[in-house]
Amino acid sequence: MGKYVFGVDVGGTYTKFGIFKDRKLIDKWKIDTDVENCGENILKNIGREIDKKTESMGVLKSSVEGCGICVPGPVDEKGLVRGCVNLGWGYKRAAVELENITGLKCAVLNDANAAALGEFDFGLGGEYDSAVMVTIGTGVGGAVIYKGQVLSGYRGNAGEIGHFKIDPLNGPECSCGKKGCLECYSSATGIVRFAYENLEKYPDTKLCIIENFTVKDMADLASEGDELCKLAFDRAGKFVALGLSFMAGAVDPKVFIIGGGVSQAGDVIFEPIRKYFKQFAFNTEEETPVLPAKLGNDAGIFGAAEFILKRRI
Amino acid sequence: MGKYVFGVDVGGTYTKFGIFKDRKLIDKWKIDTDVENCGENILKNIGREIDKKTESMGVLKSSVEGCGICVPGPVDEKGLVRGCVNLGWGYKRAAVELENITGLKCAVLNDANAAALGEFDFGLGGEYDSAVMVTIGTGVGGAVIYKGQVLSGYRGNAGEIGHFKIDPLNGPECSCGKKGCLECYSSATGIVRFAYENLEKYPDTKLCIIENFTVKDMADLASEGDELCKLAFDRAGKFVALGLSFMAGAVDPKVFIIGGGVSQAGDVIFEPIRKYFKQFAFNTEEETPVLPAKLGNDAGIFGAAEFILKRRI
Repeated sequence: MGKYVFGVDVGGTYTKFGIFKDRKLIDKWKIDTDVENCGENILKNIGREIDKKTESMGVLKSSVEGCGICVPGPVDEKGLVRGCVNLGWGYKRAAVELENITGLKCAVLNDANAAALGEFDFGLGGEYDSAVMVTIGTGVGGAVIYKGQVLSGYRGNAGEIGHFKIDPLNGPECSCGKKGCLECYSSATGIVRFAYENLEKYPDTKLCIIENFTVKDMADLASEGDELCKLAFDRAGKFVALGLSFMAGAVDPKVFIIGGGVSQAGDVIFEPIRKYFKQFAFNTEEETPVLPAKLGNDAGIFGAAEFILKRRI
Repeated sequence: MGKYVFGVDVGGTYTKFGIFKDRKLIDKWKIDTDVENCGENILKNIGREIDKKTESMGVLKSSVEGCGICVPGPVDEKGLVRGCVNLGWGYKRAAVELENITGLKCAVLNDANAAALGEFDFGLGGEYDSAVMVTIGTGVGGAVIYKGQVLSGYRGNAGEIGHFKIDPLNGPECSCGKKGCLECYSSATGIVRFAYENLEKYPDTKLCIIENFTVKDMADLASEGDELCKLAFDRAGKFVALGLSFMAGAVDPKVFIIGGGVSQAGDVIFEPIRKYFKQFAFNTEEETPVLPAKLGNDAGIFGAAEFILKRRI
């Protein structure tokens, strides 16, 4: 059994790499993701980076236990990537292809699942046995860890809290092609849109004097007491809490972990999430703690590396 | 290893028993459940029935592999029953107590989980590896089977689709103490209540001439084209479908199984469930089949017996 593991987080813009020894991150770096020609070079480029790193460190491939990669799309129970729009990929047996390129044992999982596994094993420090993680950023993603392992679901869609329908008949159109999804309301995009739509009702808001304001501006103003910004986060938190209550009713995890850019707003978003969750949750589910994520952008490489050492359920 | 297994389904009114040999039901019977004095005799009565049956059949206890019981309340990962209002029980280590009474290996699980496990292993015939079962009766219950095993959740609440909030701020009061739960709308009780609330708007409905009509009457009339009855089932099915879409987004099961009295209405309830589920589900989740349960009232004893042979996840 080798000592080194690679964790690779393939995004639409950057591909992030980590090399781990005895489950400790010893180096990390990133390259641009080449999405030209249906992303045909993505795996070759990963292979090249692994070769360069092992050579520069004088590490033999025989002392590398494997390479885990995570991708922004559904990955089913058998490791089949079922399409990644941002990478230009259709269905792809990415792990098998990367094994042929690198000669290493490889495994692939969804990026939200990887982030959750990373946060679960490294961020929480082993105190919990099950968790649901929600990432609130440009969109809203989610993942389920059960008994310490990724619960990916039959078609790779488990944990997709962002597409829980809040108002499926009359809500706004979502990028998924359906209506009224949670991420239309609670993502950074949804929070900013709500503020724009309600600017006229709140003439005193300081947002009026910021050109092209961001969710970060809104978080700062909410902390200072700006009514519109507070309302926008309260509303976003309410719908996240509703989504958490469905997750609790489905899998009853020991803990919730909230990450992503919007979670950086701190109490402004965590207070409404916790308040409404208690209101919406059934029975003892309301005791479930709602904790902030700790690893930030590195969660994916930690989780991808960890996945090599774990069985999927 | 013994050959016989007992499956016991403890309800608030009856306690149902099954004795199985090589996973085949060879006899079943029921007794009244004695809920007097905080249900203190329930387990003793089960022990007595097991003794009587083994004696009358000439079966040695050493050839009984164990006894599984299911109860109408949450059972956590460690087998602790966390209260059963209908049995008069508070927290109770029912499996350990029953082991002391019977001298058999015993295990306890929630009744909805038992029904799901029974339907999964016996009703579906082994074709699926994961399922969510929903039981629509006086209330609405649910359970998750993942990789062939019961997913009970950290506090024993996994699968509780009946308390997914449809309208948590303005909905009707639910028996759980909160508002706007799915079972307020889609249970037999909810369907009948909706009809009563809307009788005046539908003067032509034949419900007007039935005293104390039931959900069965409504199903018959809906099949004959009665507008109010059709609308009531459409509405109930819509909310069940919304609940299924949350289950799909959480655990992405291979199949849904729908049981309970209301499922006997057939197409009247299955058509709206399937139609709205396709509208509400994300991505490939919409392919998930929605199938009727097959075992009826015996699902609990099948699942309880099966649980003795299986590990919980």
